[in-house]
Amino acid sequence: MAEKVWGGRFKEGTDEALERFNASLPFDRRLYAQDIEGSRAHCRMLAKQGIIREEEASRMMEALSEILIELEKKDTAPELPYEDIHTLVERKLVEKVGPLGEKLHTGRSRNDQVALDTRMYVRDAIKRVIALIGDMQSALVELAEKHIDFIVPGYTHLQRAQPVLLGHHFLAYYEMLSRDRARYEESMKRVRIMPLGSAALAGTTFKLDRQMVARELGFETVSANSMDAVSDRDFVLEFLFGSSVLMMHLSRLSEELILWSTMEFGFVSLPDAFCTGSSIMPQKKNPDLLELVRGKTGRVYGHLMALFTTMKGLPLTYNKDMQEDKEGLFDTVDTVEQSLLLMSRLLSGVSFHKEAMSNAVDHGYLVATDLADYLVTKGVTFRQAHEVVGRMVLSALERGVELHELTLDEMKGFWQDIEEDVYAWLDPIACIDRRNIMGGTGRSLVKVALAKAREDMKAR
Amino acid sequence: MAEKVWGGRFKEGTDEALERFNASLPFDRRLYAQDIEGSRAHCRMLAKQGIIREEEASRMMEALSEILIELEKKDTAPELPYEDIHTLVERKLVEKVGPLGEKLHTGRSRNDQVALDTRMYVRDAIKRVIALIGDMQSALVELAEKHIDFIVPGYTHLQRAQPVLLGHHFLAYYEMLSRDRARYEESMKRVRIMPLGSAALAGTTFKLDRQMVARELGFETVSANSMDAVSDRDFVLEFLFGSSVLMMHLSRLSEELILWSTMEFGFVSLPDAFCTGSSIMPQKKNPDLLELVRGKTGRVYGHLMALFTTMKGLPLTYNKDMQEDKEGLFDTVDTVEQSLLLMSRLLSGVSFHKEAMSNAVDHGYLVATDLADYLVTKGVTFRQAHEVVGRMVLSALERGVELHELTLDEMKGFWQDIEEDVYAWLDPIACIDRRNIMGGTGRSLVKVALAKAREDMKAR
Amino acid sequence: MAEKVWGGRFKEGTDEALERFNASLPFDRRLYAQDIEGSRAHCRMLAKQGIIREEEASRMMEALSEILIELEKKDTAPELPYEDIHTLVERKLVEKVGPLGEKLHTGRSRNDQVALDTRMYVRDAIKRVIALIGDMQSALVELAEKHIDFIVPGYTHLQRAQPVLLGHHFLAYYEMLSRDRARYEESMKRVRIMPLGSAALAGTTFKLDRQMVARELGFETVSANSMDAVSDRDFVLEFLFGSSVLMMHLSRLSEELILWSTMEFGFVSLPDAFCTGSSIMPQKKNPDLLELVRGKTGRVYGHLMALFTTMKGLPLTYNKDMQEDKEGLFDTVDTVEQSLLLMSRLLSGVSFHKEAMSNAVDHGYLVATDLADYLVTKGVTFRQAHEVVGRMVLSALERGVELHELTLDEMKGFWQDIEEDVYAWLDPIACIDRRNIMGGTGRSLVKVALAKAREDMKAR
Amino acid sequence: MAEKVWGGRFKEGTDEALERFNASLPFDRRLYAQDIEGSRAHCRMLAKQGIIREEEASRMMEALSEILIELEKKDTAPELPYEDIHTLVERKLVEKVGPLGEKLHTGRSRNDQVALDTRMYVRDAIKRVIALIGDMQSALVELAEKHIDFIVPGYTHLQRAQPVLLGHHFLAYYEMLSRDRARYEESMKRVRIMPLGSAALAGTTFKLDRQMVARELGFETVSANSMDAVSDRDFVLEFLFGSSVLMMHLSRLSEELILWSTMEFGFVSLPDAFCTGSSIMPQKKNPDLLELVRGKTGRVYGHLMALFTTMKGLPLTYNKDMQEDKEGLFDTVDTVEQSLLLMSRLLSGVSFHKEAMSNAVDHGYLVATDLADYLVTKGVTFRQAHEVVGRMVLSALERGVELHELTLDEMKGFWQDIEEDVYAWLDPIACIDRRNIMGGTGRSLVKVALAKAREDMKAR
Repeated sequence: MAEKVWGGRFKEGTDEALERFNASLPFDRRLYAQDIEGSRAHCRMLAKQGIIREEEASRMMEALSEILIELEKKDTAPELPYEDIHTLVERKLVEKVGPLGEKLHTGRSRNDQVALDTRMYVRDAIKRVIALIGDMQSALVELAEKHIDFIVPGYTHLQRAQPVLLGHHFLAYYEMLSRDRARYEESMKRVRIMPLGSAALAGTTFKLDRQMVARELGFETVSANSMDAVSDRDFVLEFLFGSSVLMMHLSRLSEELILWSTMEFGFVSLPDAFCTGSSIMPQKKNPDLLELVRGKTGRVYGHLMALFTTMKGLPLTYNKDMQEDKEGLFDTVDTVEQSLLLMSRLLSGVSFHKEAMSNAVDHGYLVATDLADYLVTKGVTFRQAHEVVGRMVLSALERGVELHELTLDEMKGFWQDIEEDVYAWLDPIACIDRRNIMGGTGRSLVKVALAKAREDMKAR
Repeated sequence: MAEKVWGGRFKEGTDEALERFNASLPFDRRLYAQDIEGSRAHCRMLAKQGIIREEEASRMMEALSEILIELEKKDTAPELPYEDIHTLVERKLVEKVGPLGEKLHTGRSRNDQVALDTRMYVRDAIKRVIALIGDMQSALVELAEKHIDFIVPGYTHLQRAQPVLLGHHFLAYYEMLSRDRARYEESMKRVRIMPLGSAALAGTTFKLDRQMVARELGFETVSANSMDAVSDRDFVLEFLFGSSVLMMHLSRLSEELILWSTMEFGFVSLPDAFCTGSSIMPQKKNPDLLELVRGKTGRVYGHLMALFTTMKGLPLTYNKDMQEDKEGLFDTVDTVEQSLLLMSRLLSGVSFHKEAMSNAVDHGYLVATDLADYLVTKGVTFRQAHEVVGRMVLSALERGVELHELTLDEMKGFWQDIEEDVYAWLDPIACIDRRNIMGGTGRSLVKVALAKAREDMKAR
Repeated sequence: MAEKVWGGRFKEGTDEALERFNASLPFDRRLYAQDIEGSRAHCRMLAKQGIIREEEASRMMEALSEILIELEKKDTAPELPYEDIHTLVERKLVEKVGPLGEKLHTGRSRNDQVALDTRMYVRDAIKRVIALIGDMQSALVELAEKHIDFIVPGYTHLQRAQPVLLGHHFLAYYEMLSRDRARYEESMKRVRIMPLGSAALAGTTFKLDRQMVARELGFETVSANSMDAVSDRDFVLEFLFGSSVLMMHLSRLSEELILWSTMEFGFVSLPDAFCTGSSIMPQKKNPDLLELVRGKTGRVYGHLMALFTTMKGLPLTYNKDMQEDKEGLFDTVDTVEQSLLLMSRLLSGVSFHKEAMSNAVDHGYLVATDLADYLVTKGVTFRQAHEVVGRMVLSALERGVELHELTLDEMKGFWQDIEEDVYAWLDPIACIDRRNIMGGTGRSLVKVALAKAREDMKAR
Repeated sequence: MAEKVWGGRFKEGTDEALERFNASLPFDRRLYAQDIEGSRAHCRMLAKQGIIREEEASRMMEALSEILIELEKKDTAPELPYEDIHTLVERKLVEKVGPLGEKLHTGRSRNDQVALDTRMYVRDAIKRVIALIGDMQSALVELAEKHIDFIVPGYTHLQRAQPVLLGHHFLAYYEMLSRDRARYEESMKRVRIMPLGSAALAGTTFKLDRQMVARELGFETVSANSMDAVSDRDFVLEFLFGSSVLMMHLSRLSEELILWSTMEFGFVSLPDAFCTGSSIMPQKKNPDLLELVRGKTGRVYGHLMALFTTMKGLPLTYNKDMQEDKEGLFDTVDTVEQSLLLMSRLLSGVSFHKEAMSNAVDHGYLVATDLADYLVTKGVTFRQAHEVVGRMVLSALERGVELHELTLDEMKGFWQDIEEDVYAWLDPIACIDRRNIMGGTGRSLVKVALAKAREDMKAR
């Protein structure tokens, strides 16, 4: 049976199956480093406040360091009988320093302790995720720079719409990741709030120096209301939300690369190292990584929904339901980290097929808008030009030719004022460069955007 | 690096981090028994069809039995380098019987194989869950029978509404569980469809006897379309849905018992064995099991949402995204099994406080409806009676008394025709027994319902 | 201020903003036909039981018929002040027949009444949805029959895998819809349970004939427990779940047709009537319907999740939260009906480009599996054959040719025993026909499947 | 048939049922004010850039003002044939100023236009919601100040834990709302990004002054990438997420007030104006508002999940699926606004029953932790004290008395050093005041917190 930090009031022992159901150690063990870091800060503060003696603090600090090393080794069999990581660390401490070890819990409850540990864990995860976002942004910028003269069809409704620079396309993802980064960063304000001192729910009776603990842990502030402090899981929800949006973005990129690597699109070849084959079909090379990232979006959405469901309608303050916040959080951290890491690596290895992309730009009337714009330069209103070009497209489509393959006479059949200069006007790169507006796909603008991205990344 | 069942077409090896990301063995190992059972059926059929020799089949059957035993032992270190459970089993087979082992894959792809394994796993899980539902229904019936003369306030909007029998209250959960059971049972039809023979997507070229394999595995039918067979995860969604509804039901029961075990309600005492204490507050006895079950509802909802998200918009046929179907399924099975098991045990140990419940029935004007009915017997329309009794309640409320504490004169002040017999009429047990209609709380009806439940459970 | 069917106990009127927030009439008005049908059955039964007089019943029946006609007209301004459809119908009844109208509520509460109305509404919706599923299945079968000799690449991981018949591909959706249909049908059992008689929560004191009401309404049975009857919304969840799976299926078909109608795939042209254009780009023809259906999958998933959230942890019996069951249900019914209807029409109008599909089958080594099978006929094990063909594919890929474009000598360079007959063996239609197994894509099998589908549809 | 802004390329008209399915006007009409505000800014800029003449701009500006007034009137029947609000406004403009009206669309596409309109709508909604959050925070602070000497049990696991000030309890919600407010505010940065100039996807060819339009509309910046600008709905997801967390907070408060207004708790009486009655049970007064707010949490979660599902895996850039972003957004805005408004009003009207709460504090051993702390002052370690007090509680429980009802001798039986001063120590208000730490429930600290809240609210 698990060793517990309560029991005087109970006549019967705990049901063993419940003990297993109840125990969080199998998953909250992952918080061991945070639990010890937090305990060390608490210990130093207790000594400074004279609640324990300096000498007692020293012995505990040393023992906690040893425990950290022990727990870093994965296989520590005798852990299992404990309810949670907090109890495990305390019991190990008592093993090392005797009953003194129990003094560490002075002024502290597991309710505020687990809030602190989880906050520290989220803080650390955010830092790692932000770094990985930066790596992926670098990969995108490099990719854009390397293929600066590649053009590709831009799509709406997955129908070819207008020619764009390949780099412009990938910089769209740079922007998405910048927002993701900003969201994680902003949520840090609400993560780095130090809850210790809230005790079980009402605040402790000991004269703790909460600000000192916050400073030691690099937290910005201390929690303002003890009942809120032990009931609040908003910061976990924020992490799950930010990660859901990030995965949504990655799912869009995955979808595109899956499409682009089909025989039908043929725009890219994926590196063998990020694909797998079939046990049956010898020719298959499957974009597994991209499919997995796309598929794992569901898992992260699910974790968000799970915690939202769990928190709904819970009366104050701590309820055991809230223990359910951790597994989904941990799995989300792993999923997001791995997805970013592997996507960045894959991006660096993709081969882009310039000719196939360029060829695609030449088919599908992508320059029709520009032809309408051309007519506008001849004094036609846009609505009328749109109508005329629509008819030209229909006619060309039926004859199986592209707009630039129409003779000047044929064009004049639709609108008399069209001149020879229309052919130069319809050159895709001319079309691209006419979109010479902040945020547009014009080559000079894309270069500006790349320079700015480089600068932003350097400034971090 | 993982051993693979493909590779001739690849020039580069797989990225190691991708290999870990991609590998399903860490979780699909759980399908080992199903994988071997399916393989054995496939093996027998291959022999019967003359695709392999009887003697070859015998050697493989024996080896598969050995592998089953080996895999039942948890710690089999050398498993890790394999992609999935199918490859692991095949490699073990080849270790034992040499290249012959590779013949087992004849006419089979991992696409139809994993579909089969998952279907067998769900089939087995449904059987266990249905048995556990039966156990919980028994616990409810016993509880209802044991407390047949206990009355308790029935609530709407969590306000006391009308007196009901305690057994009637718990039989509402019996009904919910009957629907849960029915849903699982019905879904079996769509689970027990044998997909082998579909191969990668288009069907195999070998002359397999699909019906024979289905029969051997106790499956009702074979899949009708190979492309659907390898793309379909409806049966997993159905399991997750049925489990979500079940958990929703358990969350309602948990909520009620949490409420009933508060100081404020005081209707029940939970067994010590299903509660835990506080590291800070010596008096606490917390209903952890009930809170966990309520909280874990979120987790199961989340798994349902996750798979729905993953499946949305996937083109036919198999896509790697679908590998994401398993972890949520496995976790759901564990959660549902443990929740049912522990809730049943807890129900058997709850103490009901007859006097507290009965006292609660006496306060809060629960018999007001019956007083209105009484007036109807005196020829008043119900709407009018409702209005009159509403005013009586308001008056009694302001004076701090209950309706049966009003004197006859006071009552007559509201309606002249009220007589002495009103007091007997307002006795809670009389109120209960007047609800003498199929499905109602009248004692004889509840006894009928209990008898029927007993019969139904026996008939299974 | 709204007219209410309660109030004697209240000293203050209802806050007006709350009244609007609280009122369900703006949406539950949609239940008017069900409310009246249920009221008529209740009325007949009250008369038969002697609770009201036959003559009273006649007057009410007639008035209810009039009210039905009035409510069928959309614009009935004076409705607004009522709380809900039940109150509206009752008030209209009282307007017509005087205080007698109030007797209709005898033995009935809004709690069981709204349960009945919603059940009737779901019953009616299921019938319509099943009919629309049938229409779509017909469209799929017709499409398959009409293009019986069209072949198309079968995909896994969106990479070309093996050739399949176009009809085989669409019959996969026929199967999905058959399961959808089955789920709706099965849920009917749990929909057609008659709750009247449960009253507010504990059962009525009136001697109602519940079975008679059930029979009149075509319901299979009466509810077995009054507390469950007014608390149960499982049947709405089942409808939302069945619809979520259906929409997921439609999202997959939509995704495929969106892909197939791209320039890159070029397998189909969508009918103009189901596409729209762009206000800017004259050439655009966008697959709006398909995108909307795919996008609306989210909406239906959301409604399912919403109701699951709402129901979680609600204590028995009725709680106002449950009023939230309706809007999501109604929107789901509309979405599913429109999606099925429009998808069926679109399917009938799609043009399939035989040559483009056939051409696609010829590129991408789709016959590689069959080449491996060919080697197996020469005595090679499948694993070895897979390896050899993998190398052949890699070599052909680098030279930019297909397998059937290799000379016999070149082939022999990989495996000596390959003979001239390999070319006939690799013909796509030969590959298709070798998959001559129940559920496979072989032409004769697909014809069998089509005949069976025709038969099943006729048998309904 | 709807009038459209495209069509030259089409041979067939649009299916009428599709037109209805496709049309967004029935819901995006709600964006009319934003559409016109954006159009006016665009118009002024076109003139300033010399793309249209000043005189043309004046005519259009005037006409747009008229259209705004017309659209503010709800019933404008002839709207229906238009596809969306953008087309409606443009057609009305053309009606008023002739073909000139078509020039307004110069350099603009519906893709960037709808992005702008939605951003403006979210901006406006956030402002209103933040104001309503402020109102609710005021209500909480007032409530806390007004009942500054009320004490109430603090709960963990819904079991009485420790006495707290009522004001401390409600300030926990103040904190939650402060976080909600901060999240909405932060998201503003990502809302106020001006997308016009992105045109369909690649940027416009016209020399627009994007910064000017941004300034005119009070937007902080212009979008940096045109493809991202028309594909991005992160800002809608952020609004739905912030609202989901807010509703989760309100659901917790609702749950608590529902509990507190039961007969069993009896801590509060809700104002009649925010409750409703029963059609059957004359005594009922139901907390409808609170139940609805709790229930509507599901609806908002559902909208979040819906949009996440819709956006998953969409390739760039605009896809019609994204039209699904609006209805859930609009419904969320309504739900959140109404919930905040009504909850604030209700809070101002709740009656708190001082004696009932105080009485509850006296029962349930809420001072047990303080008794343990007392023992610690006598030199006992906390763990030991916890054990001793646990046994005292068990003994008192069995005898049906509270801790302060034990005689000094009885207490000494458990621990010899307990003295007479223990009774004063165990006074609840003393227990509260000992929690004299930042964030704790001590009276002076709560007063500090209230003062700070007042100051923060003033500073806004």
